[in-house]
Amino acid sequence: MARKSLRIDEATVVYKEKPELTDPILIEGLPGVGNVGKLAAEHLIDEIKAKKFAEIYSTDFPPQVFIDNDGIIHLVKNELYYWKGDVDLIILTGDYQGLSTRGQYILTQAILDVVEKYGTKMIYTLGGYGVGVEVEKPRVTGAATHKTLTKKLKKYDILFKDEGGGGIVGASGLLLGIGVMRGMKGVCLMGETSGYMVDPNSAREVLKRLTSILGIKISFSKLEEKAEEIRRITKHIKSLEKSAGERDTSEDLTYIG
Amino acid sequence: MARKSLRIDEATVVYKEKPELTDPILIEGLPGVGNVGKLAAEHLIDEIKAKKFAEIYSTDFPPQVFIDNDGIIHLVKNELYYWKGDVDLIILTGDYQGLSTRGQYILTQAILDVVEKYGTKMIYTLGGYGVGVEVEKPRVTGAATHKTLTKKLKKYDILFKDEGGGGIVGASGLLLGIGVMRGMKGVCLMGETSGYMVDPNSAREVLKRLTSILGIKISFSKLEEKAEEIRRITKHIKSLEKSAGERDTSEDLTYIG
Amino acid sequence: MARKSLRIDEATVVYKEKPELTDPILIEGLPGVGNVGKLAAEHLIDEIKAKKFAEIYSTDFPPQVFIDNDGIIHLVKNELYYWKGDVDLIILTGDYQGLSTRGQYILTQAILDVVEKYGTKMIYTLGGYGVGVEVEKPRVTGAATHKTLTKKLKKYDILFKDEGGGGIVGASGLLLGIGVMRGMKGVCLMGETSGYMVDPNSAREVLKRLTSILGIKISFSKLEEKAEEIRRITKHIKSLEKSAGERDTSEDLTYIG
Amino acid sequence: MARKSLRIDEATVVYKEKPELTDPILIEGLPGVGNVGKLAAEHLIDEIKAKKFAEIYSTDFPPQVFIDNDGIIHLVKNELYYWKGDVDLIILTGDYQGLSTRGQYILTQAILDVVEKYGTKMIYTLGGYGVGVEVEKPRVTGAATHKTLTKKLKKYDILFKDEGGGGIVGASGLLLGIGVMRGMKGVCLMGETSGYMVDPNSAREVLKRLTSILGIKISFSKLEEKAEEIRRITKHIKSLEKSAGERDTSEDLTYIG
Repeated sequence: MARKSLRIDEATVVYKEKPELTDPILIEGLPGVGNVGKLAAEHLIDEIKAKKFAEIYSTDFPPQVFIDNDGIIHLVKNELYYWKGDVDLIILTGDYQGLSTRGQYILTQAILDVVEKYGTKMIYTLGGYGVGVEVEKPRVTGAATHKTLTKKLKKYDILFKDEGGGGIVGASGLLLGIGVMRGMKGVCLMGETSGYMVDPNSAREVLKRLTSILGIKISFSKLEEKAEEIRRITKHIKSLEKSAGERDTSEDLTYIG
Repeated sequence: MARKSLRIDEATVVYKEKPELTDPILIEGLPGVGNVGKLAAEHLIDEIKAKKFAEIYSTDFPPQVFIDNDGIIHLVKNELYYWKGDVDLIILTGDYQGLSTRGQYILTQAILDVVEKYGTKMIYTLGGYGVGVEVEKPRVTGAATHKTLTKKLKKYDILFKDEGGGGIVGASGLLLGIGVMRGMKGVCLMGETSGYMVDPNSAREVLKRLTSILGIKISFSKLEEKAEEIRRITKHIKSLEKSAGERDTSEDLTYIG
Repeated sequence: MARKSLRIDEATVVYKEKPELTDPILIEGLPGVGNVGKLAAEHLIDEIKAKKFAEIYSTDFPPQVFIDNDGIIHLVKNELYYWKGDVDLIILTGDYQGLSTRGQYILTQAILDVVEKYGTKMIYTLGGYGVGVEVEKPRVTGAATHKTLTKKLKKYDILFKDEGGGGIVGASGLLLGIGVMRGMKGVCLMGETSGYMVDPNSAREVLKRLTSILGIKISFSKLEEKAEEIRRITKHIKSLEKSAGERDTSEDLTYIG
Repeated sequence: MARKSLRIDEATVVYKEKPELTDPILIEGLPGVGNVGKLAAEHLIDEIKAKKFAEIYSTDFPPQVFIDNDGIIHLVKNELYYWKGDVDLIILTGDYQGLSTRGQYILTQAILDVVEKYGTKMIYTLGGYGVGVEVEKPRVTGAATHKTLTKKLKKYDILFKDEGGGGIVGASGLLLGIGVMRGMKGVCLMGETSGYMVDPNSAREVLKRLTSILGIKISFSKLEEKAEEIRRITKHIKSLEKSAGERDTSEDLTYIG
């Protein structure tokens, strides 16, 4: 895998395998509110045993490595998995979303470039919808690229708001917003969540709808375990922040002279 | 409209139509203080039934989609409308201005590229002038690219300050400041506003002057309705902000190592 | 002057004239602490009647126009003036320094490109040295690119610190730091100032040393007037800030989804 | 050394010498938590009398010059030193790390480009691990690119965590994370430190492990002196910040119009 020529730019896709897929559906679950999307995507990957085929690196991800269980480091990245079934899937998850406005657009378009080549025509993006208080039975709200989709999906217990307003920030929004300009269709499924902590309840509700739509059966018994893992990483990220007490104070532009 | 090749960069203009226009006057009304400019531009578009002919996307707009009334998403953008009359018009409005300093310059120059091709020689930019308190009868202040314009426009009840100082930040300023270097003339019309809320009173005063200058007659009866619509979107944007409680905390560059 | 082809990028130099100069000395006075440098440079320009020959625009300056005394707008910029005498001078002043780290480097190198073509071998950068309290008789501290210069300049009542440490941020530092890599020599003259307001006392002390070094005689009677003008612009910039109450709140990257 | 053509970009390497080295080991010690890495690297350079062969400038370093002991300025930079012994070394230290996310990636890759050409196969990055309280006997924690390394290094009294989580931010992490993709191996050695001040105790512990691994013997008697020097520079940087009271207030994008 080591390549002298490797150069990480705004969005650098490193393939590990080039699987043959038929019109794969793209499913996105990156870090966000309650880590609902990431948790759902990672649980799905584990349950259906999806296989990683590409990694995405970016100068817009934090300049950071994570330390794995055995003291081994790896650079922060996004990952693409595939699964071949009655419908083929490509699942996107990862450590971070792009940090800057521009980075978000560049990364989204790089991912669309990949799935477009595989013939993707449909996208499901997964996320949390922060309501500020804990929710016992999280509802799932949807937003779609086409009216035909909202009609079709209402029967899966997904709410579509009547009054306008609201928005979706980050990859879950951009993949749909730019995807539709490239002729794709898509839906964002957002589970209600407090927004204050990793939320397996919300992820379960989102994933139940998604697998029901896709006609896939999975177990949810290990979802709490997966949530615990993400909680641990998130906690470490935060303690990392706190321990890095001595900041470079010259970042603000102040002038002598 | 879907194009595989579509790639959004700092300023990507997507044409829906290429109308034939004669020296069209550019009118700009993008979000800003009191949303005076945006409100005025959108009301004008509605009243004269101007037609959209181009959308502008940018990696410098927020990485965000809005959800419309029926649960359908669309990527944030700017829009160009045209209207053919005794004078032809191109009207610029949109969801956001560029977020960064550089983005503002790039977007302004992309818009000037478009209207330059159509032969635009005159620009009116519309905005609010924040005074910090509510104003019952908002005055309209002007600033121009040429002295001949200030003389000509004083009769339309537009104030031009005697003492120097002050400035115009954002598209309303840049379109004039860069436009004049390309041989265009222009005026910025700024309505007094508290700056704290969407202000249809200020927009009405600005629009009265503009339509009077252009020799166009419009009704203002639906302006309050339009203001309500913008208020609702603005409120949703703010609640969106609040609900997005869990921020990526690694954005600050702090070092271990 | 209007050019259809004009495109403002990170540093765009627009020549109004191409004077013939012999090894001109570059003098820089841009906005900074106490506006000492800008005030000194502008007063020098007025007194010796230096002539503007180039303007510099940048996507790294604020996206802003200023409104002049008669309601006429002009885009924010830097300016290059020249003066032919026993020694030829190029004087750099302007409305702003670059806003970003990268912009500062790009602008500095663009200016060095200009003066290098004219054969510049010596640079004086002017600035304030903030001490936090008002100073009745501001001292002038120097920093140089070569030891021969510090020796030569001590007789002009310029202090050179014995112990190391300290630094110069912005154009005053970069012009010397990068200039020396291109074979130029240079000195930064810093007048003590509180740092809280435009400081003509400090500017006078700096300018006295500079003109003495250059062998130029100027009057200082209008310096206070010039300070008043800069104060007024600065005050307007600040009120501009305050009045712009309604900020685009989506600038922070927060994710739903 | 002066070159008319010199242009500083995101990462500009200026060679002073092109030494012949055999598979040199790269050692990195840039500013960070407790300045442990920088202090260790600089002390090592002094003790083994390593020789500077290249300087790295960047538009992502602060736009700033430092003033040396005798009033002479030099642009902020990173530096590469070499040493020829039983094993050859390249040592990286400097004034700053890149200020932006993207800059960190670009600078890291530029450094890897340099050492790759020299045949570097092994990297040691040095840093501090902030624990928030003063530590009498700082322990040294490691993280590695390969499991074989963690096994090998445990005998040098270096801890490798059993449970996962945590991360390394900045050059110490990126050099390993990207280096491994280019076929290099590497270890990050992190000394416990409060994180609140320059910490020679922590640097000593880190350096003891490193020199022991490399089979190099050095004295630590002047380490405190070196720490004092870095403290002085750091203090000056901070006072520089404070004195620069008058900030350019237009940096936030707020709109009139």
